[in-house]
Amino acid sequence: MRFSSIRTTAGDTLAVRLEDGLHDLRAIDPSLPDGVGALVAGGPDLMARAGQAAKDATAASRLDEASLSYRPLIERPGKIICIGRNYAAHAREGGAEPLAYPDVFMRSASSLVAHGEPLVRPRASDKFDYEGELVFVVGRKARHVRAADAYGIIAGYSLFNEGSLRDYQRKATQWTMGKNFDGTGAFGPDLVTPDELPEGADGLRLTTVLNGQVMQDGNTHDFIFPVARVIEILTEAMTLEPGDVVVTGTPAGVGYARNPPVFMKPGDAVEVTIEKVGTLRNTVRDEA
Amino acid sequence: MRFSSIRTTAGDTLAVRLEDGLHDLRAIDPSLPDGVGALVAGGPDLMARAGQAAKDATAASRLDEASLSYRPLIERPGKIICIGRNYAAHAREGGAEPLAYPDVFMRSASSLVAHGEPLVRPRASDKFDYEGELVFVVGRKARHVRAADAYGIIAGYSLFNEGSLRDYQRKATQWTMGKNFDGTGAFGPDLVTPDELPEGADGLRLTTVLNGQVMQDGNTHDFIFPVARVIEILTEAMTLEPGDVVVTGTPAGVGYARNPPVFMKPGDAVEVTIEKVGTLRNTVRDEA
Repeated sequence: MRFSSIRTTAGDTLAVRLEDGLHDLRAIDPSLPDGVGALVAGGPDLMARAGQAAKDATAASRLDEASLSYRPLIERPGKIICIGRNYAAHAREGGAEPLAYPDVFMRSASSLVAHGEPLVRPRASDKFDYEGELVFVVGRKARHVRAADAYGIIAGYSLFNEGSLRDYQRKATQWTMGKNFDGTGAFGPDLVTPDELPEGADGLRLTTVLNGQVMQDGNTHDFIFPVARVIEILTEAMTLEPGDVVVTGTPAGVGYARNPPVFMKPGDAVEVTIEKVGTLRNTVRDEA
Repeated sequence: MRFSSIRTTAGDTLAVRLEDGLHDLRAIDPSLPDGVGALVAGGPDLMARAGQAAKDATAASRLDEASLSYRPLIERPGKIICIGRNYAAHAREGGAEPLAYPDVFMRSASSLVAHGEPLVRPRASDKFDYEGELVFVVGRKARHVRAADAYGIIAGYSLFNEGSLRDYQRKATQWTMGKNFDGTGAFGPDLVTPDELPEGADGLRLTTVLNGQVMQDGNTHDFIFPVARVIEILTEAMTLEPGDVVVTGTPAGVGYARNPPVFMKPGDAVEVTIEKVGTLRNTVRDEA
């Protein structure tokens, strides 16, 4: 199943993507919530009910894609945890050897934009870089999960463009400021349930295309810390809760490490694609 | 005014601290929310209404402190932003020169405990250190705020013990993991409105006392980045929203920098006191 958080002129709703396009699940079952955040918070039973409703989709429940917009897949996650330098080739292009323990930082919900919504290059900096990444969304409360048991806590997978202001990221030792400008983190379009993908979303090609040019071309098989190991590391320390979002790291090819460097500018179009997961598309605008 | 988020046998409520103790504001005005998070989210008008209700406190609204417990002052902040190395003497005890731009990281709500609730030393590490800190809570949505205009966005001040697992903090370049273990961040007891304090909470003595011994003895006048400057720096990048929490940094005297090092262990009692703001008290227990 592929679920989306949608905005229409009639209000917010939860949609499912079927072969003929998006369908409004609340038109089929009005008791379903209005977005993926509340769907995931409702646990596996609610997910199953949404899947059941999808079977009753008809021409009447189909949404007109021309008159809708996407919201960030989950608008107010309890936490957004990002794994830094999780592909060895990306660690090395930034001048660092791969670490035995991941670099972890957090983003806040105020930095999110939706699929199809412009990313915002801020007034403060023109060093605005892309980072295409695989996301997993937590579906069950979890602490002290071993890697062998980890996949059971995942509600689904999605895509993230983890836009980064490279000068602000490096102003101090901690990267948080460069990773939390308003409107710099694109998240969506769909939550893809685990049954649609290889276990742990392993072996999937990930590309980031800027203005038609392939800038990143990696594969999730090259994770230093695969999804199951990330869950083990995180839950050694903290409780993961339904709706928490983990952004798993970006492969080589980011803009700042190129010669000459490449940064995103107004009017650019950027696409992150992960095989079987989908494509996250955004343009870029300047902050007003 | 001093507001608290309280749990009683009758349920959660919002309390105000008066000369004779805590009073249940919902016993006076049942339309008020059940905690400080919702109070602050309601904006200055709701804060004013709570202040009005406090004037109608009677013996009947008084809470029996023996039969109540505190909740984390705000249980699910939109973001918890921490400023690292904001006192020069603390930066130097950790081997770093003060920076021209602050080290910023985030905590998540899953790491919070209340005033009076035990801090949790995790299974994974015995390098559990205290950090007494001043907190400010955001009361208005704000972006691009200049330091000269910054105080108007503050709903109030409080205290934080920013418990840190020093080995996990240093396993990689980013400190997030050592700062986000469950039950390691104490937050409360009261939200103290700005009219009770000097502007910007400037010039207040801050002490951390472990088992009766003064371990940290600083003054908010020694901030490298005072509250107004922190607001300017953060809002250059991101929107601050009502209920967001900013933890402003800790003075010298932390345990890991001592010779020999001192870490918290089960049965310890730790108190963070800031002049005019209050005292945050916690014991320490081992993770179950």
